[in-house]
Amino acid sequence: MKLVIIGSGNVANVLGRMLFAAGHEIMQVVGRNQEAVQVLANSLQADACFDQSEIAGGADLYLFALSDAALYQLDEQPGLKNGICVHTAGSVPATVFSRISRSFGVLYPLQTMKKGDDPGQDIPFLINGNTHDVIQIISRVASTISSSVKVLDDDRRAKIHLAAAIVNNFSNHLFALAYDFCESEELDYSLLGPLISLTAKLAGQGDPALLQTGPAARKDFITMEKHEKLLSDYPVLKKIYQVMSESIISRN
Amino acid sequence: MKLVIIGSGNVANVLGRMLFAAGHEIMQVVGRNQEAVQVLANSLQADACFDQSEIAGGADLYLFALSDAALYQLDEQPGLKNGICVHTAGSVPATVFSRISRSFGVLYPLQTMKKGDDPGQDIPFLINGNTHDVIQIISRVASTISSSVKVLDDDRRAKIHLAAAIVNNFSNHLFALAYDFCESEELDYSLLGPLISLTAKLAGQGDPALLQTGPAARKDFITMEKHEKLLSDYPVLKKIYQVMSESIISRN
Repeated sequence: MKLVIIGSGNVANVLGRMLFAAGHEIMQVVGRNQEAVQVLANSLQADACFDQSEIAGGADLYLFALSDAALYQLDEQPGLKNGICVHTAGSVPATVFSRISRSFGVLYPLQTMKKGDDPGQDIPFLINGNTHDVIQIISRVASTISSSVKVLDDDRRAKIHLAAAIVNNFSNHLFALAYDFCESEELDYSLLGPLISLTAKLAGQGDPALLQTGPAARKDFITMEKHEKLLSDYPVLKKIYQVMSESIISRN
Repeated sequence: MKLVIIGSGNVANVLGRMLFAAGHEIMQVVGRNQEAVQVLANSLQADACFDQSEIAGGADLYLFALSDAALYQLDEQPGLKNGICVHTAGSVPATVFSRISRSFGVLYPLQTMKKGDDPGQDIPFLINGNTHDVIQIISRVASTISSSVKVLDDDRRAKIHLAAAIVNNFSNHLFALAYDFCESEELDYSLLGPLISLTAKLAGQGDPALLQTGPAARKDFITMEKHEKLLSDYPVLKKIYQVMSESIISRN
């Protein structure tokens, strides 16, 4: 299929590479960050375009890998009228495109993406479209890069996006705070690697509440008090320790 | 080596199995939970003992896999005087044994353990002992079940135990809250599996702050507001959402 990619950030890079590798023709990469656009365009054998008013007509699919705010500020472009416009956002309704195209939808990858990463082959893609035919076409594209493609409406996608923020953004932040703590205390953060990895492996397999261990789960207030003392120089981490411990105690 | 295991919970089970598989002779499993003690003793070809006053003398190492509270309430036993007493706790000093034995130390596995799990081969063991010779012997035992054995004093072990609680207990609780949310909203939690797994894989490889994505990291207050609205029926999760987001914003 002929595709145009709008955006040159993490999602544009990773999805662009996946789509190109699956054999799609990437006509253009479009964006204002000239250096990033040029680099991505080169790697996808595509034209670089730095002005949204010069988007090529004639693509089957226009993939908008942009921030939520940018999606709400799109200008009408005659070239877009006959292609399918899709975005990659969890919490933006497909109808954000209703002003600028007759055919539109969503191609949301439920995975964290950084430019250089290999995100693996098993990314779930949650898709949506404004007609049955549009959904069929988006599904066909998604199926060339993933074996896990599901149709989900905007409301339900927004909820799974929230769940994704909790399991990725917040757990990653906990890991970052633990990393900072280890750096400050001159402890070897890499000792935590096997624990982080097993925690995630087990939590992906069933109800994580059944796996809960630690001082809060066993209401071991002596250890919790020791931990809070050790955190007296880390007020943010101490507050998170208390809020999370309270929540574990009330859940268990 | 000849070992006695005191305790029949998760850590006693997992370490017991590992030590038995490594060829050590488990003389006794000791504890008050008769059924659990008997099951573990049978699987380790050991005697079951339900009364701490009947602990066998003559073992090289007495492994106390007990709660912190229980470690602080141990009675003196003549049989223990000549063996090395070790516990498996992160935040309890080795000197908890000073009343009951001449030789004592710590064999702390930096991993989460549930009875039936296979915790893998790469568990870091953080050890300590009251003399150089005791440390050598504990190190020799630990090396039969792990390639990652480090000597760490009580204060530093308590700090890494705290970091372990943060990366395991708290992230697991986030996964549990996301699981509950998916159940309530009739969303398929298993869609989050690849995301949880990649999050952990990347976070184990370097500074996780460099991987931070999501609404809070990009100060996307529109999406954060949407998320908080979706959480209006989940007050605990909403509070955690706010505390974690604030911390991400102040860190980024």
